[in-house]
Amino acid sequence: MKQKIGFMGLGIMGTPMAANILKAGYPITVYNRSPDKVAPLVQQGASQAANPKALAEAAEVVIAMVTGPEALSALLWGPHGAGGAFNSSKVFINMSSVAPCYTRELAAQLGPTGVTFVEAPVSGTKKPAEEGTLLILAGGPRDKVQELEPVFLAMGKKVIYCGEVGQGSMMKMFINLLLGLMMEGFTEVLNFGRLGGLTEEAMLDTVFSGPLNCGLFQMKAPNLQNNTYPTAFPLKHMSKDAKFIVDTAYDLGAPVPAGQTLLQLYRIGVARGWGDEDISAIARVFEHLSPKC
Amino acid sequence: MKQKIGFMGLGIMGTPMAANILKAGYPITVYNRSPDKVAPLVQQGASQAANPKALAEAAEVVIAMVTGPEALSALLWGPHGAGGAFNSSKVFINMSSVAPCYTRELAAQLGPTGVTFVEAPVSGTKKPAEEGTLLILAGGPRDKVQELEPVFLAMGKKVIYCGEVGQGSMMKMFINLLLGLMMEGFTEVLNFGRLGGLTEEAMLDTVFSGPLNCGLFQMKAPNLQNNTYPTAFPLKHMSKDAKFIVDTAYDLGAPVPAGQTLLQLYRIGVARGWGDEDISAIARVFEHLSPKC
Amino acid sequence: MKQKIGFMGLGIMGTPMAANILKAGYPITVYNRSPDKVAPLVQQGASQAANPKALAEAAEVVIAMVTGPEALSALLWGPHGAGGAFNSSKVFINMSSVAPCYTRELAAQLGPTGVTFVEAPVSGTKKPAEEGTLLILAGGPRDKVQELEPVFLAMGKKVIYCGEVGQGSMMKMFINLLLGLMMEGFTEVLNFGRLGGLTEEAMLDTVFSGPLNCGLFQMKAPNLQNNTYPTAFPLKHMSKDAKFIVDTAYDLGAPVPAGQTLLQLYRIGVARGWGDEDISAIARVFEHLSPKC
Amino acid sequence: MKQKIGFMGLGIMGTPMAANILKAGYPITVYNRSPDKVAPLVQQGASQAANPKALAEAAEVVIAMVTGPEALSALLWGPHGAGGAFNSSKVFINMSSVAPCYTRELAAQLGPTGVTFVEAPVSGTKKPAEEGTLLILAGGPRDKVQELEPVFLAMGKKVIYCGEVGQGSMMKMFINLLLGLMMEGFTEVLNFGRLGGLTEEAMLDTVFSGPLNCGLFQMKAPNLQNNTYPTAFPLKHMSKDAKFIVDTAYDLGAPVPAGQTLLQLYRIGVARGWGDEDISAIARVFEHLSPKC
Repeated sequence: MKQKIGFMGLGIMGTPMAANILKAGYPITVYNRSPDKVAPLVQQGASQAANPKALAEAAEVVIAMVTGPEALSALLWGPHGAGGAFNSSKVFINMSSVAPCYTRELAAQLGPTGVTFVEAPVSGTKKPAEEGTLLILAGGPRDKVQELEPVFLAMGKKVIYCGEVGQGSMMKMFINLLLGLMMEGFTEVLNFGRLGGLTEEAMLDTVFSGPLNCGLFQMKAPNLQNNTYPTAFPLKHMSKDAKFIVDTAYDLGAPVPAGQTLLQLYRIGVARGWGDEDISAIARVFEHLSPKC
Repeated sequence: MKQKIGFMGLGIMGTPMAANILKAGYPITVYNRSPDKVAPLVQQGASQAANPKALAEAAEVVIAMVTGPEALSALLWGPHGAGGAFNSSKVFINMSSVAPCYTRELAAQLGPTGVTFVEAPVSGTKKPAEEGTLLILAGGPRDKVQELEPVFLAMGKKVIYCGEVGQGSMMKMFINLLLGLMMEGFTEVLNFGRLGGLTEEAMLDTVFSGPLNCGLFQMKAPNLQNNTYPTAFPLKHMSKDAKFIVDTAYDLGAPVPAGQTLLQLYRIGVARGWGDEDISAIARVFEHLSPKC
Repeated sequence: MKQKIGFMGLGIMGTPMAANILKAGYPITVYNRSPDKVAPLVQQGASQAANPKALAEAAEVVIAMVTGPEALSALLWGPHGAGGAFNSSKVFINMSSVAPCYTRELAAQLGPTGVTFVEAPVSGTKKPAEEGTLLILAGGPRDKVQELEPVFLAMGKKVIYCGEVGQGSMMKMFINLLLGLMMEGFTEVLNFGRLGGLTEEAMLDTVFSGPLNCGLFQMKAPNLQNNTYPTAFPLKHMSKDAKFIVDTAYDLGAPVPAGQTLLQLYRIGVARGWGDEDISAIARVFEHLSPKC
Repeated sequence: MKQKIGFMGLGIMGTPMAANILKAGYPITVYNRSPDKVAPLVQQGASQAANPKALAEAAEVVIAMVTGPEALSALLWGPHGAGGAFNSSKVFINMSSVAPCYTRELAAQLGPTGVTFVEAPVSGTKKPAEEGTLLILAGGPRDKVQELEPVFLAMGKKVIYCGEVGQGSMMKMFINLLLGLMMEGFTEVLNFGRLGGLTEEAMLDTVFSGPLNCGLFQMKAPNLQNNTYPTAFPLKHMSKDAKFIVDTAYDLGAPVPAGQTLLQLYRIGVARGWGDEDISAIARVFEHLSPKC
């Protein structure tokens, strides 16, 4: 029998994720701070909870997908917080992106309630959330993560077990660092080739015809060709993430020389006023550093 | 009717490339400095030339695939050099990897002979050469490159027209820089994740399940997992190429901050004695910079 | 008439600083957590306070020179804390090294007591503290800083007015970044010259004979010549300071490319186990990155 | 008895150097390609040679101070070149700035003439040349360098013996790298402090009052305060020198991470159009990378 799900946080990501759980046939109760986001899901068959605590009482598995630590803490420990209804028969899954250290603190706070705590940040943005093709980076007790796999696969195409609680967030940093490096590398070489007299068309053709071809380059190439950067992932968020990743690397003693380079470049991008554009607008920084035409 | 081909340079790359031209039904004459490499191709139906000049006399299209400028100059301008038989009815294609500036000098030297000069360095190593799936980066008169396309497609899967002579080598630098950056980035993040307690298996699974997945990472992952680096592309060659690329970027005024970082790391790899291993042995440099266990 | 001074924190720096105040003829009361440090100063004429509050009651100007924020908070707000005796007729000078943000928080905490708050981190280590030649980097109300100048000049050779409270700590970061960069640069070039076959003696002679000569290089040269690094300023502290400075630069949007390089190198030094040696042991990192002999 | 000197190259540096030799009482013959530079020295008592060969015939010690390898080769091996009059009783001193590898080639070319070859690039610009306070970085046979010391001390304040021929140029690279790093570091920290709200006056006061104070910072501070960069050493020359130094470091396997950073920054300075200003105009690059006001 399918578990009763409670879902808190109906933003750009949360709304399609909850809808996909509903489509997969799970009974679901939803909650959102601003209640106007709730109606569409209720129309599709979801129940509505008056507050986080009521949601947690009604559900076996409580999922949170909010913007960060502050929003999460408010839902769990604020007035009528979900934390007040947690007990050892329930599971709490945090899918919001937070730092590993925050996750570990959260684990300590949740301990006395007896709830089983699983973290599951995702890789992927709005479109994969809608299509149910997110990549789920799960940390927590291995058997529980396995048990929850059908729930996760309602929202994503794959679950990767990353280790104990905190390691899901670590994995998210790992993959975001690679994302940042590849984006930076792609724009650096395109700028180099352009100054060397190559056409963008021939360069892209070369990349796309060999073993360096990948989905990211396919996705971002049109931005670079058109020199317009509609925002899928804002440059300023990459800058903030990179800062956090480089800080973590410092604590671990991990050398991240290219990571530091990228932090510097994205930071310059923010300082020059391009923070609200897409990460691919890092191309603007390379122009800014190149000879004036 | 198919052109009569002359092919000089039967090394690791040249031998399968000549064999593929032969298989495609072209009449072919071959030459190699050390004659023992010639026999297998003659058995497959190739003619043998006594020297480069005799080869150039017998052929309409002369192709060279040798280790570098010195070997090429010897074949063209040494005793019985091919250059002595060049005229305006013939085409010379250099497929050896050389610098754009050398290519431009070569164009000047070839000018008086009247030969049509095309450069066509390739992207890909031994295996694509054998399978006829190289990427051909062609520079020269556009109509001639188009006319030669069937010859190129006997050896490769695709021809990319890069511009006038010299731009094929520029494109090779462009794609090699991206190769180096992605190899460096991949090992940097794997080392970061490892120090953060992630397993190699889970990290690779995460990379391979999303838009950063690519042929390069698939190819090199086993080396990184086994911590052994059988040489496909020697680290010391990447170091030399990177030096050359960064020098070119300097002349162009192109900022290549990640390129400089990678030059530094590969150079350290050579200095520590890992130059003859594969480029993926850059992983050893990250270990060398990480905390002692 | 000379102000009555209260001095808290009799460590390596605090003891000689308090002694110099005493020598300059100021009536002084001292306090230290571990009381054995107090006796020598009492012998020289200082009074002893039973606790920080008693000290603050006895003094017009209260000075703190402790290891960091925790120690300082304990002295101010712990049981019998000095804060309990602060009022608008008194001045509190923090000379301990803390971050500008901590300083600003402290200012807010002190506000309700009415005390005048001045920060005055110092540049210089044990020897300048003993000789009374510290450089005093003062932040706070300009008139108060001027009024206190004779007290400062009992401990140091010069007072630099840096601006409002918080700017003294900013100045300390500024000068420490330059210190780190010059130390890194000096060892980088010496390693370069050594590999190029120059003798250390001739290189130092060249540096010392021109406009790059400075006190720092004079001080650190013997360490580099002897390849032993007796600790004046531990490498791990420089690494921590550099991290803090680079973080501050990130917040300000200030590009610090050489600062990031130095952070990386010092961090490698700590990771390899050289953190307790002097900052000049950064030379070991350069050896670690150089060809094996 | 004082040696008979021949001096070739009467530019900004050569003219005052020759004048100082004359003042020290040496008989001197001079030569310059454009003869109008010769008259003032002849008025002061110098003899004039019709061509380099005549100069070398008249002199025991031949000194060259020209702009680079091409000019030098012309003087030595061109029509009526000095090389034609060299023999084992003569000494040739090259004081022009050239690469170590050129110096080694030159040594090979000079070998058959029997002349004793000494290289002696200088550290210092126009003003020290006029005041006779240059630093002489000598390479060659140690006994000969010692014997020539009085000649050198007519032009400079100190002779540093660097080793065999080629090591003088190596030393020049060593000291120029340190110069570049300190210039870069100084502007990087001043930009950081400025964005952190410190005044230039207080920052300079802090630097000048401690062990980081040096002649270079004293010299360049007014440029930075006035934001005008009258050229003493052009930024584009530093960029070219830095390229050459980083190339040499690559060949030696010497890690120069800060050197690479500085190369990148100076190169950006040239690319943006500030190459003809003083090296201290590197400050403009930091502004260019900082937040818009």
